[in-house]
Amino acid sequence: MERRNLRMTLSYDGTDFLGWERQAEGRTVQGVVEAALAELHGHPVDVSVAGRTDSGVHALGQVINFRTDASIPDERFPYALNALLPKDVRAIGSFRVSDAFHARFDAVARVYAYYFQTGEFESPIDRRFAWHLRREPSLPALNSLAASIVGTHDFTTFAAAGDASQSRVRDIFTAAFYREGRHLVFRIAGNAFLYRMVRSLVGTMIDFELTGAGPPRMREILQARERGLAGPTAPPNGLFLLKVVYDGEPL
Amino acid sequence: MERRNLRMTLSYDGTDFLGWERQAEGRTVQGVVEAALAELHGHPVDVSVAGRTDSGVHALGQVINFRTDASIPDERFPYALNALLPKDVRAIGSFRVSDAFHARFDAVARVYAYYFQTGEFESPIDRRFAWHLRREPSLPALNSLAASIVGTHDFTTFAAAGDASQSRVRDIFTAAFYREGRHLVFRIAGNAFLYRMVRSLVGTMIDFELTGAGPPRMREILQARERGLAGPTAPPNGLFLLKVVYDGEPL
Repeated sequence: MERRNLRMTLSYDGTDFLGWERQAEGRTVQGVVEAALAELHGHPVDVSVAGRTDSGVHALGQVINFRTDASIPDERFPYALNALLPKDVRAIGSFRVSDAFHARFDAVARVYAYYFQTGEFESPIDRRFAWHLRREPSLPALNSLAASIVGTHDFTTFAAAGDASQSRVRDIFTAAFYREGRHLVFRIAGNAFLYRMVRSLVGTMIDFELTGAGPPRMREILQARERGLAGPTAPPNGLFLLKVVYDGEPL
Repeated sequence: MERRNLRMTLSYDGTDFLGWERQAEGRTVQGVVEAALAELHGHPVDVSVAGRTDSGVHALGQVINFRTDASIPDERFPYALNALLPKDVRAIGSFRVSDAFHARFDAVARVYAYYFQTGEFESPIDRRFAWHLRREPSLPALNSLAASIVGTHDFTTFAAAGDASQSRVRDIFTAAFYREGRHLVFRIAGNAFLYRMVRSLVGTMIDFELTGAGPPRMREILQARERGLAGPTAPPNGLFLLKVVYDGEPL
């Protein structure tokens, strides 16, 4: 069958993965996805990914693309691939895209959500998928902090060591905290994110809310471009890559 | 220390339990809780429970009571017990109640939530805690069905074989479907429930919504009091005992 470029959406529980990126040792999402694609094709298949999620981070709508010549209809790839994937990764959609499409370079936005479980005791239901906060933070205070990072800024302060980006300027389109059932949730959409930037922002805002540091201090540390000024990094288990947005798609 | 009656709230992930009730073989919530209490006290401690959840069913707010003479302040029991409990069960609150208090007999209402994940593919994130429906059911149609079971009825139609209740009349206070983030949720509050009644109601309503059977048919099978007329029983993994309500507490 004709060789073509496929775009595929993946969902995974990051708990038992050392993140997206293939490594010499250890279980990674890229590793199991490429192994399943190789089994399906009878030869290696390289994938490009929109967002290289870190160890323990989850995805509801990660996007990849890859070249295929397999005789499977474009939209049927998830069914074929899911039969070969472990239970904690699922392909949830696929369609043909132009040869020029690249999951990473063509993405115009990434949307992440960070889940919190609040209350004195950690819930056994939420321990894989939320950060446990003993106290109930103030939603208005958190949203004032979140508002101060919206816009185009150099986010060096919130980049972890190991970030290899040429420029650390990123556009944040929306950032807000809200209640969703029993959870507190932070949702952030931006053109792209630096290494561990969402977790650094989340950890800093939770820290600032506790200590009473307000939006002026948040803007101050942002403008300082110094990594040492950020608060602690939030744990990975509360973070979800919700979706990746391409030209013409809604945020 | 003085012998007293304690009320305690528990939260658990039911996935790896054969339900609440202690059994000769197999891991049960009662089994691990009583084992931890025995370890804490140095002698066996019997607990009474508000709702004996079935195999695979979860709890966010199960209630138990037990007699203790341990020299631990009443409100500190969760800390002591959690150190001895496995990660999938947590005590999340405790306080002293009158000697007459009984978790089961004094409960005036039980509130359950049933979570659904909708979409063509099962999400790895939700597989432990939601029933996967391939299609998106109509919320208004489901709520019309739910409204038809509110009130005082004989629920024999929705009792599983093995229900030993003397009377099968139960009061349903509220029953409604709603969206919560990416999930569809059904919440139901009633004075008590028959064996597998919530799962039977959920399975029947989802079946009726699909086949177009409306509230008149729902009322008809309810009035018939025949178990054979109910739809399939929904799987346990979507079901949560949210809370147990005692005199003077909100639903």
